[in-house]
Amino acid sequence: MENFTFYSPTYFAFGKEQECNCGKLVKRFGGSKVLIHFGGGSVVRSGLLDRVKKSLDEEGISYIELGGVKPNPRSGLVYEGIDLCRKNDVDFVLAVGGGSVIDSSKAIAAGTVYDGDFWDFYEGKPVTKALPVATVLTISAAGSEGSPDSVITKEEGMLKRGASGEAYRPKFSILNPALTKTLPAYQTACGITDIMAHLYERYLTNTKDVEVTDRMIEALLLTMIKEGPIAVADSDDYESRANIMWAGMVAHNNCCGVGRSQDWTSHTIEHELSALYDCAHGAGLAVTMPAVFKYNVDHDVMRFAKVAVRVWGCQMDYDNPKATALAGIDALSKFLSSIGMPKNFEELGAKEEDIEKLAYTCCYGDGSGSGVIGGFVPLKQKDVEEIYKLML
Amino acid sequence: MENFTFYSPTYFAFGKEQECNCGKLVKRFGGSKVLIHFGGGSVVRSGLLDRVKKSLDEEGISYIELGGVKPNPRSGLVYEGIDLCRKNDVDFVLAVGGGSVIDSSKAIAAGTVYDGDFWDFYEGKPVTKALPVATVLTISAAGSEGSPDSVITKEEGMLKRGASGEAYRPKFSILNPALTKTLPAYQTACGITDIMAHLYERYLTNTKDVEVTDRMIEALLLTMIKEGPIAVADSDDYESRANIMWAGMVAHNNCCGVGRSQDWTSHTIEHELSALYDCAHGAGLAVTMPAVFKYNVDHDVMRFAKVAVRVWGCQMDYDNPKATALAGIDALSKFLSSIGMPKNFEELGAKEEDIEKLAYTCCYGDGSGSGVIGGFVPLKQKDVEEIYKLML
Repeated sequence: MENFTFYSPTYFAFGKEQECNCGKLVKRFGGSKVLIHFGGGSVVRSGLLDRVKKSLDEEGISYIELGGVKPNPRSGLVYEGIDLCRKNDVDFVLAVGGGSVIDSSKAIAAGTVYDGDFWDFYEGKPVTKALPVATVLTISAAGSEGSPDSVITKEEGMLKRGASGEAYRPKFSILNPALTKTLPAYQTACGITDIMAHLYERYLTNTKDVEVTDRMIEALLLTMIKEGPIAVADSDDYESRANIMWAGMVAHNNCCGVGRSQDWTSHTIEHELSALYDCAHGAGLAVTMPAVFKYNVDHDVMRFAKVAVRVWGCQMDYDNPKATALAGIDALSKFLSSIGMPKNFEELGAKEEDIEKLAYTCCYGDGSGSGVIGGFVPLKQKDVEEIYKLML
Repeated sequence: MENFTFYSPTYFAFGKEQECNCGKLVKRFGGSKVLIHFGGGSVVRSGLLDRVKKSLDEEGISYIELGGVKPNPRSGLVYEGIDLCRKNDVDFVLAVGGGSVIDSSKAIAAGTVYDGDFWDFYEGKPVTKALPVATVLTISAAGSEGSPDSVITKEEGMLKRGASGEAYRPKFSILNPALTKTLPAYQTACGITDIMAHLYERYLTNTKDVEVTDRMIEALLLTMIKEGPIAVADSDDYESRANIMWAGMVAHNNCCGVGRSQDWTSHTIEHELSALYDCAHGAGLAVTMPAVFKYNVDHDVMRFAKVAVRVWGCQMDYDNPKATALAGIDALSKFLSSIGMPKNFEELGAKEEDIEKLAYTCCYGDGSGSGVIGGFVPLKQKDVEEIYKLML
């Protein structure tokens, strides 16, 4: 196992009606003038925003509001948020929504206290200072409620890039599984896929002897396989949503990813798809993962066979471990399909003729990339092109 | 799943030579005058204490020392530590050792800033304020390095009791698996048993639909089954010790125990054994757990069958699930035996003629107990006596 540090100081309030404790928690963590950041009308229509505001009112905490965050959140709204925070002396950013809202909130929080352009952080500058951020989560997916990460898309060139830093860890996160019941089945499934991708990205490692984190990742994948289809089929089932919500947090706060190299190839390759076609990140991952895994399977057949047997219940073919490895990838594809995820470029709305451009941007970005991606297997533009072709 | 809050703000520095960062971390978390608390001569002989002091010296942090913590740490030394901290204006307690040293440090940290007798906390008063505590861990076992808990034995009456509170969460914990290499195999095995007990205490629940935490607990048990025997057989094997060390922390920081009722019967019953006979806590648990589980098996046969199949690799007997449940308990017994743990009262040094007294103290303490113990199955004195008899 490699040396590591792990620090996850987020306070989690989990369960029914926890959003009513929002005001008390903002006060506990030092907020007095809050930016409430949210997306579309669903948090307004459901009454959630009103409950949050009431809770802040009860503690005498003042706030301003900024809605309008879209999936694959954009830099434009971040600049607007930064401006708003500075003009109103905001000292706390409260995200009410899913991963996009939280990531946009983190970017605003860092940008407000930074002299330069917030995009610097998304080009590699470590995030060391930000306004405190907290979340009221409405979809289990991104894991941003417990992570030090944020992903933003720059409108100019449609570049989708991530930033990271301890200052991005939320002070508190309110996780009420009931808030996710209003999601369409498709979005629930996208969230499930994203969580499973966070697990696979950590599972695919070149570090030896990491049984504890291997087993934890497998445990969370098994949870998703049991609870995912229930949540997709019955939006009123609280228990499946509760299991998924905690699994989604644990999957991405990195307690099951410490001390080991990680992959993140599927995320890197997918980001180009959601940036260009504005598809849901989870849907893009559903198409990307099986292609990446098939392309990389020979790099470590036994690892793919292990997840096939332990997680997907495949029988180990001792004469032909690669057959088992591939059966596990196939089981993943079928599972994602069964919860309504797309299987290929066409279903995703992606185009074959864009492949070269997608692969170039993926490897070189706006010219700043190194030309090589992937923590598990180093991949160049030609490899990435082949992977996109496997998605046709 | 039940509503819960989860807050684990400990900073973990994991891996080789991490103790050399001790001074920097004390400074980061606000310490300027430190009490270094430790046990016997092993941390002196190994040179660890010198490395810790050098690291503090390099940051210009002053310190005083208090050694002498014994397994099943006593109230006497806690009073001495409190006195020492007050006289020397200590503002930070650094535990260098295992669970006993950490628990003693926590008690000193709370007692120093409390006007009354620190024992109040061990009689049920919540711990809301304490000096900051940090740890340099030398044995994987108690999980105290990431938990809000502490267990102390009061010499008067040999009462062993626990206290808990967020103020007891360490500010940082240094986890260097190499520091555990000097442990005798027996103590390594005791630690493994304690970790497995922390997992079983959480697994035995009456809460329905907790797949995510069930699976996580199973994952950590599977890790112990693979890595435990390697660590016991070869004290130089770093990787097995690294896997066990992280598993030990995760097993007890409660991320796999949230949202569900827990048991803690085995710990409650064992505490009487280690308090009276001064045996190792892990050794006492090895004798206690199988007896408790056999006594309680009918309360939820399918739960015991599940852990038997998923963790111990037993074949499910669909005609007779109780046979599977019992086979799993038997597999646990054999495993603990195989790593050198005692199997019965005699091997533990406990006496049959004490059973009534043990059961009485277990259920009623010094007269303050309610007479009923157990989160999984409520047990009275007669039940506890029967359980002790199963250990003969």
